[in-house]
Amino acid sequence: MRIDQATPEQLREWEAQLSKDYDAIVGKKLSLDVTRGKPSADQLSLSDELDGILAGNYIAESGVDTRNYGGIDGIPEAKRLGSDLMGVPADNILVGGNASLTLMHQTMLAAYQFGLTGTSSAWKNVDSPKVICPVPGYDRHFTVCEQLGIEMITAPMTADGPDMDAVEALIKADPNIRGMWCVPKYSNPTGVVYSDATVERIAKLGLIAHEDFRVFWDNAYAVHDLNDNPQQLASVFDLCAKHGTDNTVIQFASTSKITHAGAGVAFTAASSANLTGLKAFLGACTIGPDKVNQLRHARFLPNRDALMSHMKKHAELLQPRFDAVLSALQEAFGDSDLGSWEEPAGGYFVSFDTRPGCARETVRLAAEAGVKLTPAGATFPYGKDPEDRNIRIAPSVPAVEEVVGAMEVFVVCVKLASVRQALAA
Amino acid sequence: MRIDQATPEQLREWEAQLSKDYDAIVGKKLSLDVTRGKPSADQLSLSDELDGILAGNYIAESGVDTRNYGGIDGIPEAKRLGSDLMGVPADNILVGGNASLTLMHQTMLAAYQFGLTGTSSAWKNVDSPKVICPVPGYDRHFTVCEQLGIEMITAPMTADGPDMDAVEALIKADPNIRGMWCVPKYSNPTGVVYSDATVERIAKLGLIAHEDFRVFWDNAYAVHDLNDNPQQLASVFDLCAKHGTDNTVIQFASTSKITHAGAGVAFTAASSANLTGLKAFLGACTIGPDKVNQLRHARFLPNRDALMSHMKKHAELLQPRFDAVLSALQEAFGDSDLGSWEEPAGGYFVSFDTRPGCARETVRLAAEAGVKLTPAGATFPYGKDPEDRNIRIAPSVPAVEEVVGAMEVFVVCVKLASVRQALAA
Repeated sequence: MRIDQATPEQLREWEAQLSKDYDAIVGKKLSLDVTRGKPSADQLSLSDELDGILAGNYIAESGVDTRNYGGIDGIPEAKRLGSDLMGVPADNILVGGNASLTLMHQTMLAAYQFGLTGTSSAWKNVDSPKVICPVPGYDRHFTVCEQLGIEMITAPMTADGPDMDAVEALIKADPNIRGMWCVPKYSNPTGVVYSDATVERIAKLGLIAHEDFRVFWDNAYAVHDLNDNPQQLASVFDLCAKHGTDNTVIQFASTSKITHAGAGVAFTAASSANLTGLKAFLGACTIGPDKVNQLRHARFLPNRDALMSHMKKHAELLQPRFDAVLSALQEAFGDSDLGSWEEPAGGYFVSFDTRPGCARETVRLAAEAGVKLTPAGATFPYGKDPEDRNIRIAPSVPAVEEVVGAMEVFVVCVKLASVRQALAA
Repeated sequence: MRIDQATPEQLREWEAQLSKDYDAIVGKKLSLDVTRGKPSADQLSLSDELDGILAGNYIAESGVDTRNYGGIDGIPEAKRLGSDLMGVPADNILVGGNASLTLMHQTMLAAYQFGLTGTSSAWKNVDSPKVICPVPGYDRHFTVCEQLGIEMITAPMTADGPDMDAVEALIKADPNIRGMWCVPKYSNPTGVVYSDATVERIAKLGLIAHEDFRVFWDNAYAVHDLNDNPQQLASVFDLCAKHGTDNTVIQFASTSKITHAGAGVAFTAASSANLTGLKAFLGACTIGPDKVNQLRHARFLPNRDALMSHMKKHAELLQPRFDAVLSALQEAFGDSDLGSWEEPAGGYFVSFDTRPGCARETVRLAAEAGVKLTPAGATFPYGKDPEDRNIRIAPSVPAVEEVVGAMEVFVVCVKLASVRQALAA
């Protein structure tokens, strides 16, 4: 189907047929949900031995009784797990509670309100501190900025990561830019892995940006590969060391999509200066994180091999769901001008760009046909997709046949929205 | 020993004898620590069945899979546990992560920065918002205010709780007072339980204070009685309802000193307006708390009877330690002018007031003799005890014979500091 080459008559024919197809789907009264990047129950069950794994031994290898108070930065074996996950020395890792989002919020709040390297470094000291958001991106990152009143400016995503020409130009043009969000591997939502060149250019941003500029490197999908020979993400930690920009990038990760999504362990990896600033803030918020749960996770995933073989079990469950999405898109739109997408080799999302102006209508049509998609616009700051194109598909939770069913609906809705728009033009 | 009635010669005799006693103690090279209100290992072991208690069943009674994301305010059975603990309807309870300090910090931050009932209610809207701190009090409360830049003003503690004449006078005199810290039962550090009249006057503060005024009611020791027939704390929730001041008091509690201190579950109890404001803030910080750990706790302590019989086991371990402290104080100082103290019937602390100007020196002498006490001044905002009198003793962690040993040192140090001060005067 090629809209741009279709005659009005052809468009009317398509519209008639698609409307019939759509009505037939509505009649099925489906109830499918591909909105959120959550593990399925089967994935969660892979880690059920966590509860009880301690067998009465609550003592960490350092001799610390994990049941009691204290230890703001985590127990050594949990730092090692963070090191296995993030590829950063354990000494540079802080282990938190159950949510990396909380660590990101706390870090950005500390940077904004109190300063990570002394009060003079607080972002609020300038009138309108700004943060760069590659788009499409992750809505919860945007919410953090919005709550703190930090202005977001966008840069486009490419197949290699953020458009670094655009990012560098923004930084050079505006001295009040203080931060940037990144999801460097299987980026939310486009699924791309940042290229080595992109990672190196990000590491070098510290050379051109304000000294209080920080990249928030949300490596949420660090080991979440679908294939055996995944594209490797370059080490931003090593590249910062190479360029003398150690304070520029603060990394985050968690076991949320490794073990139990709501009951995992979160990590920050950063320079010692950044960790000192973060710990100064955390010291007023808490006596310490849940070290018992840290110990459970360290015992469950005692080394990198255990971690990677555990992740293979996730891949076995996720692969057919991603296949269902990607084969449906290829079959329906491979030879069309109705949309474009990346083919993620990991992560939790497939991102689809419709023809301009068709995303919101596609999501509406799908909802009325019983298929819930993430609201159009959610992948942009302030919920505003300027071209109304991007739709995020999250196939992890439904059964494979449900993903197949949801994609049948999705395809009809994209086509119908596109054809009707062309007719109305 | 009565310093005020002693002759200089008598003082010199005492000083000589006490110096000898002290040197003998120093020679023992003790290493004892009565600084922090932490449960002992034996207390922690009372809850060791928590790990494994789920036996593979991670589903909450609502059908929610606790392993997955979501549920910002906690699972129903955990709210019920909060209700059993705090005596507040489950509907008014939010269940958080492992630390009530974190909930208090988040609530005060939200009140200060964003406003609990809309942005116009943010404390930062006035030039110098202030919080009343009854003294002596809990150092971590003071740290929260200090970090946020909120000025603290003090009101004295009495045997019935805060001096409410002083509190009401402060509120009437300063329209910028926005908050007040309270530890209403077995107050940290004096151990008193607020009287019914005090609780009612606190509930009525909403009638005279600014509408954004909030009492932070840290009921950390709600069920932490040493005796079978403890003094009952009046329900501030019911009294607020009676006086139409539902938004005035926000309550906090946790299982930190019930199950595992670093790995428990924390609660906030508040009006629906306050909860709405808090949840709006939390929604940017987290996708939700650790519901698996909430479920563990709800299964471990399924009702009020289970909770109270569990707390009796704690009392059996704590009682002899408190007895050791109180009998040592009574024997040494019962008939003296060297200091005063309350006799707590629960909680984690005994608070001792030396003669003015002797606390810091007592703590220093004890430290040199191998007994670590909480730094003098820590129980006052900014670490400044204006009369240098208050010392907090936390006897829960050491073995009973170690508490006895620490108190022998303490008594000699108090006497020596007092006598030397009198001689120098």
